[in-house]
Amino acid sequence: MNQPYQLYYWPGIPGRGEFVRLILEDTGTDYVDVARLPEGEGGGVAALEGLLAGDRPGLPPLAPPILVAGDLTIAQTANICFYLATRHDRVPPDEASRWHANQLQLTILDLVDEIHDTHHPMSVAEAYEAQRPEAARRARAFVALRLPKFLGYFERVLAAHSADAGEGLLDGRFSYVDLSMTYVLQGLAFAFPAAMGALAPKLPRLRQLEARTARRRKLAAYLESDRRAAFGDGIFRHYPELDV
Amino acid sequence: MNQPYQLYYWPGIPGRGEFVRLILEDTGTDYVDVARLPEGEGGGVAALEGLLAGDRPGLPPLAPPILVAGDLTIAQTANICFYLATRHDRVPPDEASRWHANQLQLTILDLVDEIHDTHHPMSVAEAYEAQRPEAARRARAFVALRLPKFLGYFERVLAAHSADAGEGLLDGRFSYVDLSMTYVLQGLAFAFPAAMGALAPKLPRLRQLEARTARRRKLAAYLESDRRAAFGDGIFRHYPELDV
Repeated sequence: MNQPYQLYYWPGIPGRGEFVRLILEDTGTDYVDVARLPEGEGGGVAALEGLLAGDRPGLPPLAPPILVAGDLTIAQTANICFYLATRHDRVPPDEASRWHANQLQLTILDLVDEIHDTHHPMSVAEAYEAQRPEAARRARAFVALRLPKFLGYFERVLAAHSADAGEGLLDGRFSYVDLSMTYVLQGLAFAFPAAMGALAPKLPRLRQLEARTARRRKLAAYLESDRRAAFGDGIFRHYPELDV
Repeated sequence: MNQPYQLYYWPGIPGRGEFVRLILEDTGTDYVDVARLPEGEGGGVAALEGLLAGDRPGLPPLAPPILVAGDLTIAQTANICFYLATRHDRVPPDEASRWHANQLQLTILDLVDEIHDTHHPMSVAEAYEAQRPEAARRARAFVALRLPKFLGYFERVLAAHSADAGEGLLDGRFSYVDLSMTYVLQGLAFAFPAAMGALAPKLPRLRQLEARTARRRKLAAYLESDRRAAFGDGIFRHYPELDV
């Protein structure tokens, strides 16, 4: 490919674009984060909105993240991750590994949807402040039932590997799924510090996975850089009243 | 493959298992719908729950649908559909078509998540009757904003094809995505007849796609058979008070 990848995502938050960025950063792959460029250089939200409005031929995307790879423009987080991992050696090439990785990635993204809906259970068109009682109720169910269910599942996946396997989610092997899992664990620690603190003793393998992944050389450099947007808005938000 | 596929899904509802069934039925592929067998024959919910409890080696699934294909066991609806469509000629073999099909399929499944949450916006662990006011509010936002946004998007995808293209969502070509879209349109007509009636004039291409797909020979035979579970519970539920 002659041109670097172009990633289109809402600027200012890590959001779902971060799942894509982590693969690009961990592999040291060149990319342009288009909406973070100034509008005068073809960037900004205007560039993203143009793409969503269908300013290019071919299949339009409904929502970001969107990846432009030469002539190919694709959307949907799990789809972009699957594509990049296949091309850049972040998933083993055998067929079973690929379908299992995609299964795990989609399960992580199901959790992400539920994390998002704790602060927006009624409508994405209204602010959190307009749906606080409902958010409190949804967050209670999330913290009590759904969060332990999802994280307990991933801990169980890690525990099921034989002792001589490595320590990644995908049959003990490192893959892009571990990058995504690490990001979600970091986001949960920001959004739900009390709930995650209470769960921590039950998740020793996930905590090890997070610590080990965050030490990967290129990834650690990225996490320290100003390319990594801070948590604060978007999916992972810290409202103390939801962290029960 | 010597053994037929085994599909594991909650018996009694079409649910997310239906996306998988439609590909198997449209291609005339042999499969066993395990949880619909009697428990005495290794079926029932017990068989499904055993699989979820990790009674087999390898990567456990978190939730159904689950497909067993020889030595491979995979979960996540979009993942299973992608796998089956690739193997059974329900997606063109070129790379762009496959990533675009998966993009569309994931967008359809995002819509399905939002349909589900209209009747369960607070917690999947509580009955609809325990969250009726919240469901009414979420359904209002869904009908007013989200449903037109999603269906308007798919109508736009169809409208973007050149006049001499075919009429499938994937660049005019028939694919498994059309099977999934047809199922969702049928489910929406059941769950939200008033809202869908009001939207119908704006969705001529989608309505044509649904009618044409439902006439496919093997699919039509399946839809008339007793293998097709009736709508009523699960994702697509008809509560008149939510259909505004």
